[in-house]
Amino acid sequence: MNTSVDKILSQTAEVDQASVQPFTGSQKIYVQGSRNDIRVPMREISLDDTPTDFGGEKNPPVRVYDTSGPYTDPEVAIDLRAGLPDIRSAWIEERGDTEILSDSQSIFTRERLDDPKLAHLRFNLTRKARRAKPGMNVSQMHYAKKGIITPEMEYIAIRENMALAQVRELGVLNQQHPGMSFGANIPGEITPEFVRSEVARGRAIIPANINHVELEPMIIGRNFLVKINGNIGNSALGSSIEEEVEKLTWGARWGADTVMDLSTGKNIHETREWIIRNSHVPIGTVPIYQALEKVNGIAENLTWEIFRDTLIEQAEQGVDYFTIHAGVLLRYVPLTAKRVTGIVSRGGSIMAKWCLAHHRENFLYTHFEEICEIMKAYDVSFSLGDGLRPGSIADANDAAQFGELETLGELTEIAWKHDVQTMIEGPGHVPMHMIKENMDKQLEVCKEAPFYTLGPLTTDIAPGYDHITSGIGAAMIGWYGCAMLCYVTPKEHLGLPNKKDVKEGIITYKIAAHAADLAKGHPGAQLRDNALSKARFEFRWEDQFNLGLDPDTARAYHDETLPKESAKVAHFCSMCGPKFCSMKITQEVRDYAAQQGVNVEGISEDQLVKMIDVEAEMQEKAREFIEQGAELYHKV
Amino acid sequence: MNTSVDKILSQTAEVDQASVQPFTGSQKIYVQGSRNDIRVPMREISLDDTPTDFGGEKNPPVRVYDTSGPYTDPEVAIDLRAGLPDIRSAWIEERGDTEILSDSQSIFTRERLDDPKLAHLRFNLTRKARRAKPGMNVSQMHYAKKGIITPEMEYIAIRENMALAQVRELGVLNQQHPGMSFGANIPGEITPEFVRSEVARGRAIIPANINHVELEPMIIGRNFLVKINGNIGNSALGSSIEEEVEKLTWGARWGADTVMDLSTGKNIHETREWIIRNSHVPIGTVPIYQALEKVNGIAENLTWEIFRDTLIEQAEQGVDYFTIHAGVLLRYVPLTAKRVTGIVSRGGSIMAKWCLAHHRENFLYTHFEEICEIMKAYDVSFSLGDGLRPGSIADANDAAQFGELETLGELTEIAWKHDVQTMIEGPGHVPMHMIKENMDKQLEVCKEAPFYTLGPLTTDIAPGYDHITSGIGAAMIGWYGCAMLCYVTPKEHLGLPNKKDVKEGIITYKIAAHAADLAKGHPGAQLRDNALSKARFEFRWEDQFNLGLDPDTARAYHDETLPKESAKVAHFCSMCGPKFCSMKITQEVRDYAAQQGVNVEGISEDQLVKMIDVEAEMQEKAREFIEQGAELYHKV
Repeated sequence: MNTSVDKILSQTAEVDQASVQPFTGSQKIYVQGSRNDIRVPMREISLDDTPTDFGGEKNPPVRVYDTSGPYTDPEVAIDLRAGLPDIRSAWIEERGDTEILSDSQSIFTRERLDDPKLAHLRFNLTRKARRAKPGMNVSQMHYAKKGIITPEMEYIAIRENMALAQVRELGVLNQQHPGMSFGANIPGEITPEFVRSEVARGRAIIPANINHVELEPMIIGRNFLVKINGNIGNSALGSSIEEEVEKLTWGARWGADTVMDLSTGKNIHETREWIIRNSHVPIGTVPIYQALEKVNGIAENLTWEIFRDTLIEQAEQGVDYFTIHAGVLLRYVPLTAKRVTGIVSRGGSIMAKWCLAHHRENFLYTHFEEICEIMKAYDVSFSLGDGLRPGSIADANDAAQFGELETLGELTEIAWKHDVQTMIEGPGHVPMHMIKENMDKQLEVCKEAPFYTLGPLTTDIAPGYDHITSGIGAAMIGWYGCAMLCYVTPKEHLGLPNKKDVKEGIITYKIAAHAADLAKGHPGAQLRDNALSKARFEFRWEDQFNLGLDPDTARAYHDETLPKESAKVAHFCSMCGPKFCSMKITQEVRDYAAQQGVNVEGISEDQLVKMIDVEAEMQEKAREFIEQGAELYHKV
Repeated sequence: MNTSVDKILSQTAEVDQASVQPFTGSQKIYVQGSRNDIRVPMREISLDDTPTDFGGEKNPPVRVYDTSGPYTDPEVAIDLRAGLPDIRSAWIEERGDTEILSDSQSIFTRERLDDPKLAHLRFNLTRKARRAKPGMNVSQMHYAKKGIITPEMEYIAIRENMALAQVRELGVLNQQHPGMSFGANIPGEITPEFVRSEVARGRAIIPANINHVELEPMIIGRNFLVKINGNIGNSALGSSIEEEVEKLTWGARWGADTVMDLSTGKNIHETREWIIRNSHVPIGTVPIYQALEKVNGIAENLTWEIFRDTLIEQAEQGVDYFTIHAGVLLRYVPLTAKRVTGIVSRGGSIMAKWCLAHHRENFLYTHFEEICEIMKAYDVSFSLGDGLRPGSIADANDAAQFGELETLGELTEIAWKHDVQTMIEGPGHVPMHMIKENMDKQLEVCKEAPFYTLGPLTTDIAPGYDHITSGIGAAMIGWYGCAMLCYVTPKEHLGLPNKKDVKEGIITYKIAAHAADLAKGHPGAQLRDNALSKARFEFRWEDQFNLGLDPDTARAYHDETLPKESAKVAHFCSMCGPKFCSMKITQEVRDYAAQQGVNVEGISEDQLVKMIDVEAEMQEKAREFIEQGAELYHKV
């Protein structure tokens, strides 16, 4: 604990203990790059040896992409009041194109800093904000276009390439089906130069504000692993800063690659500071929400000046990407009139209201180039919002939605002219057979700028299960080329997600993203599946749990049945029949082959051993048998 | 309660109260066919009027396909000891091609009946089993080929066509996207003649054993609504008959179209009798499981005679479809040797063991025509088992799997020669991009006989969430043409599902099946989505819950958040801003339009009213606002 921070802050900001537990059977490792300060985190899962009866071989550890950050590193002392370690300042400083601001350039920020009543809420940030020197552009896209490979790019190459390094070691698990990638351009190995070229081309973004120095760089693009976003945000006045940071660390633990802070209400400036200082993942926001707060929720009172000040305020804090609803044009709004569910995007409805009230064009559109100027001075990435996305199956792929998408395509080209990194937000609610049209149109209109979709939900009829209705659509659009999937929780449309819902949403979306990686044929993606299935076949239960996306739930589900069953071991054979256990069948097949010298169409004895397995229920019974009747088994 | 049954049976078989509750906001209705005894059940969901501010129109009730059976009919007195009402005997009797058997033709059945120790376990069936008269064929396919439209076919036409009748009434909800059906042949209206022609063609089956007279007929085929199966089965000696019937009624309540009884262990003959007598949905089994019990679990001791007796035993009881692993040929077994997970089908492993032990061809294959003779004498449908299905992503679409599928295609033609209804089981574990190959190959090789798949799971890395990994694959293969989806629960690979898991699996699969219906463009499928989305937009919360697949969970999730929020109504506006409530925005837009006489690009005032909406969280807050601040609102 940092006692000087303790003295300044009266609050007792405590880290969520559930988020700092190391994963079972795993250790945090760092792979070093070309310089000492490029240290890329991975989780390495240790595996047991294969049981002797299955061959007894060693199983090398499996490395998996690790979004959990310093929180799961036992070597790092977590203190929310001190924030996370600074890993990027040296990289940014040495580029020599930024300057430290002596004062905030945001009027609002200065007001907040000058208000003594807020002292107890403030994160104790002693570091000053940084900005591009006049005339300079500090975006990763700008460097990429100039042919510069930044430390961020090298970091990402190592991170994305992790699985490939493993595959070279792991012969037996090295098999993978050829993918079907719909024109993606996934190389056999992710090199720093490939990262650079994709960013230069606009086909990938590295959301990495120069003021977010705690960031572990990551990339969003169709030729990289599919990413997922989780949302947080204080939604009630009573929600504390600790609760928001807890949602952040909890979401990242289970796999959120980025987190959007959708807070509304009071003190969101201070809450955001705490979130960013304690976030190793990129943070996205929707600045119009805060701008609206500043005009007391009266949409028509919004002005470009207030919005601009909000962008600067948040850019100085280190927000990595902004959702900007610049495509909600006045002429598109009436196109939503006959929809079943009108405009369902909050930002979209705010801008539609403003446009109608003034009968003028959306000021985010008319000031778009000025927004670009701000973005490139801090390297904030665009997430061009889909304010007219469909809110029901009925409204999918309509003129309003696709009209806005066309405009987002135009805006992408303007952003790229400024070397501002850009991704595009997408729907929403879309039946399965209309998903690909969304992806294809986005790729075409937005020239392969990364697509970032909410689901889509493939039916409207399952409130309470919209993580699943949307997980189906998310997996499919990820396969078709979507770069990042915004999660949906079971509480969607019904209420505010709790921690359990957040985890359920995140895991569902990790499944969708990984299923997409497999289908696209991302190199090495199948390794974890192979390792888990091999563990399953060999009754290495702990390995199966630890290789899963959620070892805790897998273990709990297993243990839920086992105690009841354990009392019934004596009935094992009479219940299932002695040959229902794959271990026993395997043994008998082996014995039979040995005795008879049988050669079934060229099959070897070793092959026979692996030939017979049974379903999961049986596997479990077999495991009990092994655990509780091991002596008997080994006497056979 | 039937007191005479009470006297005979000492056990107190009680129906699960959770399964007999009527659905909220719904009533059971019956649509009558061409004769008095064709009464097709549906659930009719009553809807509130649209709030005055949204136009105040009446919303006609919505009918949905109802799998819950007599259990949710308050007019039916449920007594498990008496079984369900007989609705088919008259239909079967009048065909004049069956005879009542004075004694069971199964040796095993006679032994069980003669054993006085089993008296307390027995269902009190006074009715004798029925069989085709010598030389007769009583399959629905046989009738269909002869041009006969059976009452079962008419019943199914009414049942499948339900939504269309509604669509004609419901103008505003009548919009539906054209589907993409990959060569399916879905008509605009399901007629009895269409049902007949599909059954005759082998493209659909009506699993309806002449001894299952309690059955509410349903159909499985790619040109009908996609169906789902739920599994039950006693897996522990302590599992009671009531528990099995409870799983049946619970699964059917939430949407299981058929149920497979996968029981092993003692007393499965008696358990099965209780299940069938209390089941309104078709029951499937895997007879080899019971046959194996009869030889004390020694696979190599299985004989054709024992298996044959088991088929007759179960056919006389009324099992509607049999999984028969006749495609596991000796020559395919070695092809599984190099797999990551070998053979994972229990039936497949039993038959592989038998083939290897005797080094002879699978007796299910060599006796296939004799099996057909039995099937057609009771109208049991084939579910040709995929004993070599892949158990991991690595093993998907391999030579063993597709070799077996080729054989299942041959067997389909043999079954059709005998007019035996046939569907084909499919995988398993398949990455997304390899799913369509499965469907296309099955359609080709099996000449469009219905496909019935387990998932498929689209990744192996999420034990504890395999309802989701497989729900993704299930939705996709349903879209591509799969006729029935076998559910997977969250406990798959880990333990035995409890009631919560069964429901989670069923709902996930209803989502998958419905998403598939939408994508295929099944006529009327989108009606329920439209009605729910309209209710959502208009803040008709109860309607939204009741139209959902699981009203109880939706309501509980909503209520979980609401109590916390209700205390904060005073902060509503300061938290979200007064314009974050779509109801208020709508009102202001309307006022604005009225005052200014604004005509925004031809948009009418009425259209403006529906134009602005906000996201779910906001909708909820708006609802609280309406509920708790309605007075304020109406004063505006």
